Amino acid sequence: MADRSVDSRQFRTALGSFATGVTIVTTRAPDGSPIGLTANSFNSLSLDPPMVMWALAKTSLSLEAFEKADYFAVNILSADQQSLADLFATRGAEKFSALNCDTGLGGIPLLRGCSALFECRTSYQYEGGDHVIFVGEVVEFAHFGRPALAFQGGTYASVVRYPTLSAGGAAVPARDVDSSFSRDFLGYLLGSAHARLMERVRGDLERYRLSEAHYHVLMFLSNEDNLTLKELTTLTQLADHQVSYQTLADLVIRDFITVSGGDYPSTRARLTPDGHRVALELAASLKAAEAYAERFLGATEAQTLKMLLRSILHAIPPVAAPSGADDA
Amino acid sequence: MADRSVDSRQFRTALGSFATGVTIVTTRAPDGSPIGLTANSFNSLSLDPPMVMWALAKTSLSLEAFEKADYFAVNILSADQQSLADLFATRGAEKFSALNCDTGLGGIPLLRGCSALFECRTSYQYEGGDHVIFVGEVVEFAHFGRPALAFQGGTYASVVRYPTLSAGGAAVPARDVDSSFSRDFLGYLLGSAHARLMERVRGDLERYRLSEAHYHVLMFLSNEDNLTLKELTTLTQLADHQVSYQTLADLVIRDFITVSGGDYPSTRARLTPDGHRVALELAASLKAAEAYAERFLGATEAQTLKMLLRSILHAIPPVAAPSGADDA
Repeated sequence: MADRSVDSRQFRTALGSFATGVTIVTTRAPDGSPIGLTANSFNSLSLDPPMVMWALAKTSLSLEAFEKADYFAVNILSADQQSLADLFATRGAEKFSALNCDTGLGGIPLLRGCSALFECRTSYQYEGGDHVIFVGEVVEFAHFGRPALAFQGGTYASVVRYPTLSAGGAAVPARDVDSSFSRDFLGYLLGSAHARLMERVRGDLERYRLSEAHYHVLMFLSNEDNLTLKELTTLTQLADHQVSYQTLADLVIRDFITVSGGDYPSTRARLTPDGHRVALELAASLKAAEAYAERFLGATEAQTLKMLLRSILHAIPPVAAPSGADDA
Repeated sequence: MADRSVDSRQFRTALGSFATGVTIVTTRAPDGSPIGLTANSFNSLSLDPPMVMWALAKTSLSLEAFEKADYFAVNILSADQQSLADLFATRGAEKFSALNCDTGLGGIPLLRGCSALFECRTSYQYEGGDHVIFVGEVVEFAHFGRPALAFQGGTYASVVRYPTLSAGGAAVPARDVDSSFSRDFLGYLLGSAHARLMERVRGDLERYRLSEAHYHVLMFLSNEDNLTLKELTTLTQLADHQVSYQTLADLVIRDFITVSGGDYPSTRARLTPDGHRVALELAASLKAAEAYAERFLGATEAQTLKMLLRSILHAIPPVAAPSGADDA
């Protein structure tokens, strides 16, 4: 054993390796005031009868209200309810005044925007050290299908389900050789996944005789018009597709953009109506491929992927000098 | 409410939105035989005294053993113990014969390779519908720091912590403009993250006057020598860096590879000693950048990122015809 005695901080850290969802348990106090607090000690208990359990610290200001309540509700928080979790974890905070709640059994406030919701009749209250275990029989429940918030190691988290790769419907390309380089190298996987998506746009690009640099200028302008060349260069950090003055000149000649406002690099670019049309068409091809990939991965997984990619961009700053050979 | 009555399958689905870790709870039967089963109904309960709880179905073959046991152990499974979770979830399976276990309090089998481990003295057993709630006081525990397995929506999962972006130590590039295109488009994020990693190799490539196509040939050959051009083309699916006969010819002239074995595309390529040296140098630059990114993300997160990227490659098959304009 790594530890011979139970140190409270180490105990908490060890418990933290067990992932949980995050809930807000609500009820109504005898005086009618709404009560709620964040708890991750929830779990399912019984199917027949349907029962769930959770635990509340004996020092909680809300203990008496829950002990006296005939009903309570467990609101399973969704991935975008992190701030609500923080609010309801704050002792003595003003929790309900700014919220629009629904009303459940016994007048209990039910939160909106959750992932799932269980309305319970209090069945048992059990001794549990410095906590009280509440067991409730589920009288009503709802499942809203929103991606759920998770908690692990003391921080909020999202849960990424292992994909069932056989269920994709997409053909796996036959491989004569496989390679740990192609399976395990982050750089290769990133490049391949990017190329796979861009393949879906390549037909459109060829048809319009556009490069990827042209493509990115059109995409950024369609998102936010009237950018300077400097701004476009900052945004277009795809190393192989740096936007040059020539890139803009090509697009002017093609009547896809107009430029104005002084010399390079403060030249400003705007889409023409033709440019807008082409940009929308190109965006539609990429969006279709992205939407397909995101459906395959699942909503939480796609969001998590994007978050991880943004983290990489945050973690690794751009190389300042283009020929900086020794700073890797 | 979406449901007015408690349907068992719908109830299970709703409960599934609450993420949990996965544990195997072990004990020793009165006859001395080791007992263990997979449970995700575990949770922390009390800090002082240190207590945890879990629930066991009354129909379980192991119920009597746990009811009579003075001690039990909760093994929090790590991300690579999925097959162990499946084994211990199988009723009546031969579970311990192929395992090397340690021995804990009361002779209880302790599993190896877990994320954390709690050895408990049984404190309370409570009625819980079709389950019995077991509360144990934690006598010994260990935290091994391995990424933990999670379970949600009926499938295994990994938990990706939200990154604390301010704690990275890396400077965030100043941005005059930001764009939902650069934040939200998967294609852009993939391309940017790939380019950011490749930037770290660019200095080396420039020094050796090599293209990315050359780079990928060297990488694949350093991973597995003696590949045919056809195999190299299959592996090198980065659309912009297709390996051509010219790519190989360049590398032959530079004395980085030798080719043999017939005409294109069955030509086989091997690294020369010089080619090996350069390949190792290039790989080191990329590996350093990847290792930096993976440390920043965390081990589970980096593995999850790679898994998601592989899923994208699986989900979106390569475009068959290079000019297939309308199949996106």
